[in-house]
Amino acid sequence: MPTKLTDVAKLAKVSPTTVSRVINNYGYLSQKTIDKVHAAMAELNYQPNNLARSLQGKKAQMIGLIFPSVSNPFFGELIERLEKKLFDKGYKSILCDSNREPEKEKAYLGMLAANQVDGIIAGGHNTELQEYEKMSAPVISFDRLLSTHIPIISSDNFAGGQIATNTLINLGAKRIGIITGSNETNSPTLLRLNGYLDALQKNGLDPFVFQIKSTTSNSLKKIEIARILREEHLDGLFCTDDLTAISVMNEAQNQNIKIPQDLKLIGYDGTELIQKYFPQLTTIIQPIDEIASLLAELITLRIEDPSAPLEMRYTLPVKLLQSNSI
Amino acid sequence: MPTKLTDVAKLAKVSPTTVSRVINNYGYLSQKTIDKVHAAMAELNYQPNNLARSLQGKKAQMIGLIFPSVSNPFFGELIERLEKKLFDKGYKSILCDSNREPEKEKAYLGMLAANQVDGIIAGGHNTELQEYEKMSAPVISFDRLLSTHIPIISSDNFAGGQIATNTLINLGAKRIGIITGSNETNSPTLLRLNGYLDALQKNGLDPFVFQIKSTTSNSLKKIEIARILREEHLDGLFCTDDLTAISVMNEAQNQNIKIPQDLKLIGYDGTELIQKYFPQLTTIIQPIDEIASLLAELITLRIEDPSAPLEMRYTLPVKLLQSNSI
Repeated sequence: MPTKLTDVAKLAKVSPTTVSRVINNYGYLSQKTIDKVHAAMAELNYQPNNLARSLQGKKAQMIGLIFPSVSNPFFGELIERLEKKLFDKGYKSILCDSNREPEKEKAYLGMLAANQVDGIIAGGHNTELQEYEKMSAPVISFDRLLSTHIPIISSDNFAGGQIATNTLINLGAKRIGIITGSNETNSPTLLRLNGYLDALQKNGLDPFVFQIKSTTSNSLKKIEIARILREEHLDGLFCTDDLTAISVMNEAQNQNIKIPQDLKLIGYDGTELIQKYFPQLTTIIQPIDEIASLLAELITLRIEDPSAPLEMRYTLPVKLLQSNSI
Repeated sequence: MPTKLTDVAKLAKVSPTTVSRVINNYGYLSQKTIDKVHAAMAELNYQPNNLARSLQGKKAQMIGLIFPSVSNPFFGELIERLEKKLFDKGYKSILCDSNREPEKEKAYLGMLAANQVDGIIAGGHNTELQEYEKMSAPVISFDRLLSTHIPIISSDNFAGGQIATNTLINLGAKRIGIITGSNETNSPTLLRLNGYLDALQKNGLDPFVFQIKSTTSNSLKKIEIARILREEHLDGLFCTDDLTAISVMNEAQNQNIKIPQDLKLIGYDGTELIQKYFPQLTTIIQPIDEIASLLAELITLRIEDPSAPLEMRYTLPVKLLQSNSI
């Protein structure tokens, strides 16, 4: 059982009201009394109860982080930085791994509302959730349109698709494919696809679009990648995430397709993991640290002032990390 | 502002006490009243306040997860599974990325105590923390001795070191090195090192131990790996984590050292990320899913019954994933 305020009072031989006064620093108190209570608190390792203070109208200082999968390196790195930045601002992070399950995301929203969480940062992929419209806590979205009044932070996915494709075109590639995940309306990968299509059209080249949904099993994904490499005779390939690009590299090696001589390859995300352990991959880098900073800044701004005037969309620039796969 | 119980009462045209009775299901209530209150709750998206219920002596249903780095694939996958299993048991997860900073870990322990968190699962790396001795909430540890009364769950790190080393010996390797991270007392990597030393000794072979601390910068780590490969003339190498093994593979390629012909290589951890995207690496697999299940089971057991008799140590078996690097 956690130590209670009454335990402190007993040990310090004062009334519970006196302990409460010491904690909240009000009313008349002698230095002797203050010292006695502090000594008892230290001895019992007593921490003033944030829950109680929250109910007295003070903040619980908690922010819910709803993301599809913390084991995905991109989200892992984003969540790690978010947690650190929120900690520095005095907030704790409740982790909600929505795991692409709308029911779980709904359950979390319900729990978050019930706990009077101060705010929510949502990067979930279950976009049809009406619950977001009703949330009373401030919400900031990463990459997804959740509701008409929830600001969205994202990197420039359209420009990222253009940069990757133009790079392949400038290197002389003619049959340039794209492997993309979700093509849902307003999804970040759809914007990357649109950037790809735009760049090809401006250069009079034909698109080769392959969609492998994120819910596809790993073995089926491998089979489809093997088929694309074997049958489509591409000389350039843009993958809308780095992990898919790595699967392409592995399969290209199996088929004796040389990267970059036979096939020029560009990925997307540019996590630290990729930069450290797949340094050979050329990729589009999302500014993970800046995204985390801006998400943390805007959510705390909205918590402190629910009517703070915010833009509806914040778009951060991406850049090409040039390496040996092109 | 979150919807309050009094807002529901106003809309349903009943007293706040009646709303409270409906929520907590006590006292006499007509079906008509119950229906009116439920309708008002639905219309306002009102959620009964867990904080208030927690103060009334009911559980807040929160568990703190203290781990060094969620962006490390091993911890990312462990945390993802933990969060899911705890969710299924009705608990939310507060993420504490202790990031190898003792002060941050202390601050989290303080916040956790202040919030009357129901329990803590700690996989932090800051082992000298006396605070764990004082925690009143139940704590279960992953891989680390935190205090004499906190149960530890780990995989069989000693056996893992033995298996990896014996595998290299059986394949004919004679100069078998180890690259390890921390060698602190009771650390999991020290146990892997001891398993390595034990296997070598039993076979009359000399050890070649190289320590690269986890706090070492990536560029310094690369330089040290390059030196080991260039100067030590090893024919077998066991890395106590997979990411280091991947850095070794990358550097071996730079130096035209062929794996496995010139150097047989075994890693450690065996995350899904490694299995999917580095399928060529032979590694020792930790049973991440079983570890998460047992951590979730034991913490909830201790929460429900603080005096539940638990073992002080639970050791789960590891296994070799045989692939192309040996």
